[in-house]
Amino acid sequence: MDVTVAIDCMGGDHGPVVTVPAALAFLRKHAGSKVILVGRPEALEAAIAETGGALAGRCEIQPASEVVGMDEAPANAMRNKKDSSMRVAIDLVKSGRAQAAVSAGNTGALMAISRFVLKTLPGIDRPAIATALPNRKGHSYVLDLGANVDCTAEHLLQFAVMGSMLMTAIDHKSRPTVGLLNIGEEAIKGNDIVKQAGELLRNSGLNFHGNVEGDDIYKGTTDVVVCDGFVGNVLLKTSEGLAQMLATMLREEFTRNIFTRAMALAAMPALKRFKNRVDHRRYNGAALVGLRGVVIKSHGSADEFAFEQAIYRAAEAGANRLVERIAERMAAMEGAST
Amino acid sequence: MDVTVAIDCMGGDHGPVVTVPAALAFLRKHAGSKVILVGRPEALEAAIAETGGALAGRCEIQPASEVVGMDEAPANAMRNKKDSSMRVAIDLVKSGRAQAAVSAGNTGALMAISRFVLKTLPGIDRPAIATALPNRKGHSYVLDLGANVDCTAEHLLQFAVMGSMLMTAIDHKSRPTVGLLNIGEEAIKGNDIVKQAGELLRNSGLNFHGNVEGDDIYKGTTDVVVCDGFVGNVLLKTSEGLAQMLATMLREEFTRNIFTRAMALAAMPALKRFKNRVDHRRYNGAALVGLRGVVIKSHGSADEFAFEQAIYRAAEAGANRLVERIAERMAAMEGAST
Repeated sequence: MDVTVAIDCMGGDHGPVVTVPAALAFLRKHAGSKVILVGRPEALEAAIAETGGALAGRCEIQPASEVVGMDEAPANAMRNKKDSSMRVAIDLVKSGRAQAAVSAGNTGALMAISRFVLKTLPGIDRPAIATALPNRKGHSYVLDLGANVDCTAEHLLQFAVMGSMLMTAIDHKSRPTVGLLNIGEEAIKGNDIVKQAGELLRNSGLNFHGNVEGDDIYKGTTDVVVCDGFVGNVLLKTSEGLAQMLATMLREEFTRNIFTRAMALAAMPALKRFKNRVDHRRYNGAALVGLRGVVIKSHGSADEFAFEQAIYRAAEAGANRLVERIAERMAAMEGAST
Repeated sequence: MDVTVAIDCMGGDHGPVVTVPAALAFLRKHAGSKVILVGRPEALEAAIAETGGALAGRCEIQPASEVVGMDEAPANAMRNKKDSSMRVAIDLVKSGRAQAAVSAGNTGALMAISRFVLKTLPGIDRPAIATALPNRKGHSYVLDLGANVDCTAEHLLQFAVMGSMLMTAIDHKSRPTVGLLNIGEEAIKGNDIVKQAGELLRNSGLNFHGNVEGDDIYKGTTDVVVCDGFVGNVLLKTSEGLAQMLATMLREEFTRNIFTRAMALAAMPALKRFKNRVDHRRYNGAALVGLRGVVIKSHGSADEFAFEQAIYRAAEAGANRLVERIAERMAAMEGAST
């Protein structure tokens, strides 16, 4: 695909040791794509040398002297680190040299800088964070995941537009279904904001399925699930906690003694296939949507495989006009309502 | 234990075929306890005869001619079915003949009838629904799970009292820790209601741990986790959906072909131990707390084992003065604040 991705190579728990090999692995798989590696040149060059070559012509280094700390206050990162790898990567999107940026750094700082540099799209009050979660049929996008704690019905409608266009741009699905997260399927249930959002969604022209409940996320009832950032953050972290607990318990039962270890060995191919299917690394790369540019947030602890997935999502979204699709859809809705 | 539990034997998806054998199994394990089976006498007698005896003197039948439908409107059940098995079971708690009631019927109707018949405790604005969720160390109680969609900070404080007393009454833990569900551990995060609730909890005299996040539930960071009913319902159903998806995928990998079936056979003891550990039936029995009486809600689809757990929880809560403990704690807090 014909796209250039700017990569904040210094962010995340591991920095260039992970981000640079992931970028080069991505380039090898996707002919025509380019990356701009952003960070301290000496660190990047060392990592490139170790990986064995820079894929000449498709991989460029953009120097940035500073790094945003993982626990740094977003306001501080924004005001005082104008030459951070995160900021420079986003500036590359702003200037049009790249069609998307990826960072594994501090979420708060990434959101603050992205919002400040890129600005939100017309009609969008606040950007949101969306991620893909696996289900029995494939995956769906859930948003918002924590950028917006208190949301109005209009915000939820905007999230639905952004989630739908994300599914269209990255997964090439033309009329994604949208579910409104609620605590009952009947339209009368839920709080006032959710009820109002239901009304707006029914008249939006989106492919609105209706209310969905928590279990519908993993059943794959709809392609997109919208909720406020408090609920979305709780459901995401609860899911992570439950999955980790179950994985730990399964491991404990198979490593209890020499007999159970032998069982694990015997069952390895099936256990391994299961592990691959539910591997959360495949879903790495949350989208900051609603901005005038594509920004993808990788998990801070992402390994090379996981970070490569985040780059891939950034490239797909950039190549398939995510931002323009959201803008067009918002404009069409504005037009219809006036 | 010295306690009498009133059982709505007609409620739930299966009725007396499940509820009666579960009640008799409970009696056999707990000397000194009694049950009052509520429902249509002919249906109950038939179920008792099949189980092989009524444990004379410890099992009584209380006739009730009506049944609340699983999809019946709560208002209708409350107004027009005064001789329903659900209503009669709760009446037995009200009159003092039973110390607790259990039903697998319609949650909305159970809450409406319980509230109408038993009333809320002094200082409690609204009853809540609490359930035990498993974690790496044992289990914790989470509330509210859907009875209260919009909550004030005071409601969250009341939930914390109710959850703490539940842990004390059922699990005999004297100073349970309380976590306030939020989207960040820092006190500055979250919405205004959660921030205010944090202030109230810090001054409550409860064993307040501070903010917790979704993954802390399954880590077992605190004994009690409080949140509003919208968030609680979403997190519970999301957990159910994820657990079901993972179980389905694990089963699929082991039943893919004759080789994987052989692997499953070889790994059976470890897989079975894992299944037992995460068996949601062990956690059946949500408590309707904040009322002047103990009411436990079983899952509608509960089998005999699961329904027996719900009866056990009702008996423990009734025998260990759950209601009085909540009332005393609320009175102490009132006294301290005036």
